[in-house]
Amino acid sequence: MIIDCHGHYTTAPPALEAWRKQQIAAIGDPAMAPSRASLKIGDDEIRASLEGAQLKMQRERGTDVTIFSPRASAMAHHVGDATTSLEWTRVCNDLIRRVCTLYPDNFVGVCQLPQSPGVRPENCIAELERCINELGFIGCNLNPDPSGGHWKEPPLTDRWWYPLYEKMVELDVPAMVHVSSSCNPCFHATGAHYINADTTAFMQFLLSDLFKDFPTLKFIIPHGGGAAPYHWGRYKGIAQDMKRPPFSELLLKNVFFDTCVYHRPGIELLLKVVPADNILFASEMVGAVKGVDPDTGHHYDDTRRYVEPIEWLSAEDRGKIFEGNARRVFPRFGTRTPRAVNSAGRAN
Amino acid sequence: MIIDCHGHYTTAPPALEAWRKQQIAAIGDPAMAPSRASLKIGDDEIRASLEGAQLKMQRERGTDVTIFSPRASAMAHHVGDATTSLEWTRVCNDLIRRVCTLYPDNFVGVCQLPQSPGVRPENCIAELERCINELGFIGCNLNPDPSGGHWKEPPLTDRWWYPLYEKMVELDVPAMVHVSSSCNPCFHATGAHYINADTTAFMQFLLSDLFKDFPTLKFIIPHGGGAAPYHWGRYKGIAQDMKRPPFSELLLKNVFFDTCVYHRPGIELLLKVVPADNILFASEMVGAVKGVDPDTGHHYDDTRRYVEPIEWLSAEDRGKIFEGNARRVFPRFGTRTPRAVNSAGRAN
Repeated sequence: MIIDCHGHYTTAPPALEAWRKQQIAAIGDPAMAPSRASLKIGDDEIRASLEGAQLKMQRERGTDVTIFSPRASAMAHHVGDATTSLEWTRVCNDLIRRVCTLYPDNFVGVCQLPQSPGVRPENCIAELERCINELGFIGCNLNPDPSGGHWKEPPLTDRWWYPLYEKMVELDVPAMVHVSSSCNPCFHATGAHYINADTTAFMQFLLSDLFKDFPTLKFIIPHGGGAAPYHWGRYKGIAQDMKRPPFSELLLKNVFFDTCVYHRPGIELLLKVVPADNILFASEMVGAVKGVDPDTGHHYDDTRRYVEPIEWLSAEDRGKIFEGNARRVFPRFGTRTPRAVNSAGRAN
Repeated sequence: MIIDCHGHYTTAPPALEAWRKQQIAAIGDPAMAPSRASLKIGDDEIRASLEGAQLKMQRERGTDVTIFSPRASAMAHHVGDATTSLEWTRVCNDLIRRVCTLYPDNFVGVCQLPQSPGVRPENCIAELERCINELGFIGCNLNPDPSGGHWKEPPLTDRWWYPLYEKMVELDVPAMVHVSSSCNPCFHATGAHYINADTTAFMQFLLSDLFKDFPTLKFIIPHGGGAAPYHWGRYKGIAQDMKRPPFSELLLKNVFFDTCVYHRPGIELLLKVVPADNILFASEMVGAVKGVDPDTGHHYDDTRRYVEPIEWLSAEDRGKIFEGNARRVFPRFGTRTPRAVNSAGRAN
């Protein structure tokens, strides 16, 4: 089985965006805010949004199941206040649940969190519990910068975040560190802000004893870990100069990288420097890059094509990257089939 | 000849830092500010600061000349106002000139600019002219974020920066895009802020037609280009989705990467994906990483050891990376010896 650990619902029916626009227009005039129930999307619309996109690509590329979450760039935690964020987050998470119910073999849910700039992370706990316990989700996306490019929150390793981490540990779910859109004109969202956030998070983890406090807490740093694997020697050297423990002890039991790196030399570097135990297959399709690479004739984000043919990768390591690590990092996936995972939320 | 295009005077005599502390203490009370002339550093102190460090490493590692600039993390453009920045910048640049005069075969100067948050870049022109025309320097370091991690300046491709670019073109000098220390607790300076700035700058260039307006303007993105080479497929794909021209046309005549990547797999990736014409040898010693890699027994930042043995790199390309490209990107270096370059500023 090939598990793609990183996909967002970027192709949701247009009614979702219309609802969001109405919600944003009502900021400052709560009486005008749309109710969650006012969002009407039929099952057929959901099917149509996926059949020609994520499902088609799963079939064509030979991947089996996608760990699926709301569109990252649309989380936009900086918009409105905590109530705005909570309403939007519930709507988005509920839609992911419907996707997982319609296609229980193809998608397993990961939730957006109702973060809001300056609002304490414990404010996200109720929605996290709802998604894990009631909707059958297996993880969450955590935005280290809800301001959208101004980086005003404390580092991820600050005690500010601890109440959320306590709940993650209790529920046995990992977080993917994933920012949203950028409202800082210096940072293009998918070209700079995303990658910078990945690099920033890695460096924060390197500096901290967070995983002494939470030995079972797990994070996935997406987009191949930002710049971290390319600068692995730099990071090793900085850690060594600072007398930090070796990576194996410091963070490799807790920090994982996905394979959203859209060319073969990048994937080869990732697989050379990062232990196979710390790499989870992912493509982020349909995502940041949609085109076909003229040099290969295949989609840039068809990342299986980069991993599969690497001759020095052992079958065992390939199996870990494609399946085993995802089942380990997402314990609620574990040894089960996607259908069994999704049945946990079936009653709702 | 091996030209190291990226070195900072990180080992300057302690009197420099003492002067800076005095200057910072006097912020708000200009009468207490130290004069530039009050900084007393003897030639022997300068020699001692270099002999056991940069010069020793040049000899041991077999590099010949370093393109040398003031300590990047100490530029701290966010401290004080434009006058503070100008005084500090002049002191630092004058010290680089003294290094180049004492060791005319080993160092060629690149200047710090007196940037200050929110102050228009034309304010840097007089100091740039002084350094190029009077001190014999051949380039400048340009900080895309003088706020120190808050990213409040417009992108590097904004017309805000154009007056400085006009002067750079007129003087025929490139800029290395280099941030300074971070006062945002999210960003570790050398581990996150530096690398993020490199990635950010690359993406800004990708989005813009800056080089249509300035066909001969040149930038070096240090630290191996941040995350850009590792995510080369992502950037190619994003550019393609946006119908931007191919990189060869869009930016490869104007944007260059150094080799400050501190492990062999990273250097191999860089050399595989970026054309040899766009790579300049550099180590940034004595810099961000000081230790010895236990896996190789050599200093992490001894980057010649990564480039030299790559068997698939042709002698011609190796020559470009070690010497030819630096002479081309720094036209004031050109075909001359370092001594001849430095004699341009000899009279002063």
